[in-house]
Amino acid sequence: MQPREKFPAPTVRRLSLYLRELRAHQDAGHATISSKQLGEALGLTDAQVRKDLAFFGQFGHPGVGYRTAELIDRVRKILGKDRSWNACVVGAGNIGRALLPYGRFRRDGFDIVAIFDRDPAVIGTLIADHRVRPLSDLPALVRERSIRIGIIAVPAEAAQETALRLLEAGVVGILNFAPRRLDVGKRIAVVNVDFMVELEQLAFQLSLDTSAERPKPRKKSGERSHDD
Amino acid sequence: MQPREKFPAPTVRRLSLYLRELRAHQDAGHATISSKQLGEALGLTDAQVRKDLAFFGQFGHPGVGYRTAELIDRVRKILGKDRSWNACVVGAGNIGRALLPYGRFRRDGFDIVAIFDRDPAVIGTLIADHRVRPLSDLPALVRERSIRIGIIAVPAEAAQETALRLLEAGVVGILNFAPRRLDVGKRIAVVNVDFMVELEQLAFQLSLDTSAERPKPRKKSGERSHDD
Repeated sequence: MQPREKFPAPTVRRLSLYLRELRAHQDAGHATISSKQLGEALGLTDAQVRKDLAFFGQFGHPGVGYRTAELIDRVRKILGKDRSWNACVVGAGNIGRALLPYGRFRRDGFDIVAIFDRDPAVIGTLIADHRVRPLSDLPALVRERSIRIGIIAVPAEAAQETALRLLEAGVVGILNFAPRRLDVGKRIAVVNVDFMVELEQLAFQLSLDTSAERPKPRKKSGERSHDD
Repeated sequence: MQPREKFPAPTVRRLSLYLRELRAHQDAGHATISSKQLGEALGLTDAQVRKDLAFFGQFGHPGVGYRTAELIDRVRKILGKDRSWNACVVGAGNIGRALLPYGRFRRDGFDIVAIFDRDPAVIGTLIADHRVRPLSDLPALVRERSIRIGIIAVPAEAAQETALRLLEAGVVGILNFAPRRLDVGKRIAVVNVDFMVELEQLAFQLSLDTSAERPKPRKKSGERSHDD
């Protein structure tokens, strides 16, 4: 495998999509898949699929294409999903609540093992079988439950302080739902999810049909997505 | 401006981040900003900032840098935010509930004007001053309230059907929170937000420190995010 810096972010993002499609393909009973089939399912060329996968090694078999189960295993491994990641959520608002019962996470190697909030009215209540803990419990629980990922689901003004608390407690990665850039230096990996950014990406696509009152046939824009 | 196909998706994504920083800069009372300052706030080089903006025109002033208010106006326009976009949410679960009171959307040109659900127990209840409507009201409300964006916040198995209903009702763009690829041809713009994809991007970064029990100093990975 090449050094980490060599992997383009869009390629790594597409790996997640390949994995999703490969599983659907496997569930449908197909033991093999071609780059053309995989690409078609995602609106990509077969050349793009082959190029993306080639970053990570040699996966195809001449005359067969890819073996579905084998490619799933290998993509899972590349994405770090061959092990389990314990995570905690900070913030028991709507976003936090939406994440907790997310069964897919657990099946998929991400296990949310604790949720924290600072509101005394919420602390102690149950959300999807998890008791909401005070933030003061964070360091101890991160240690006891081997929590490596912190999910920030607090209001923007509390995000930075939360990030520093997670960092001090020993998490190594943050998924940040607060609409604020976190200043954590280069000490920790951060992935940001900002709904406004996503809406703006959509508005950008739509606004180029500037005078359109009615939807026009689109050639390329329709398949643009932040997954591309 | 160049044709739409010429704009790299990561550049358009960074425009949203520039806009967020420019506003913070303006709120702090600064009338001008350099590409270096803007870049530093986002962990980017000044060359990257200039290159991104150059896709859309000439913005700087010699000896001044960018005029904050002017650049905000122009980036807003590029992102289609100089007008207002009416949106609806389908699905009154946790995600849908999390979106509705999102004050930022309204201030920022996105106005969620309706929410729909198919569950009779939820229909008619109030969420952040919006009464939940049955799906049968969708076509009429899209027309009456000039809804152009549909936000899908239903379970995966209902996502495709919801997308087709939105399409038929006349929306022109979809923000999809369901973990399923929508098959809508090229008739409509789609942006996908999949929390699992985001978690996988984080796990990918973390897993490359494969043997690390404790966080190691990172050089480049820490600043990797899906915003990059």
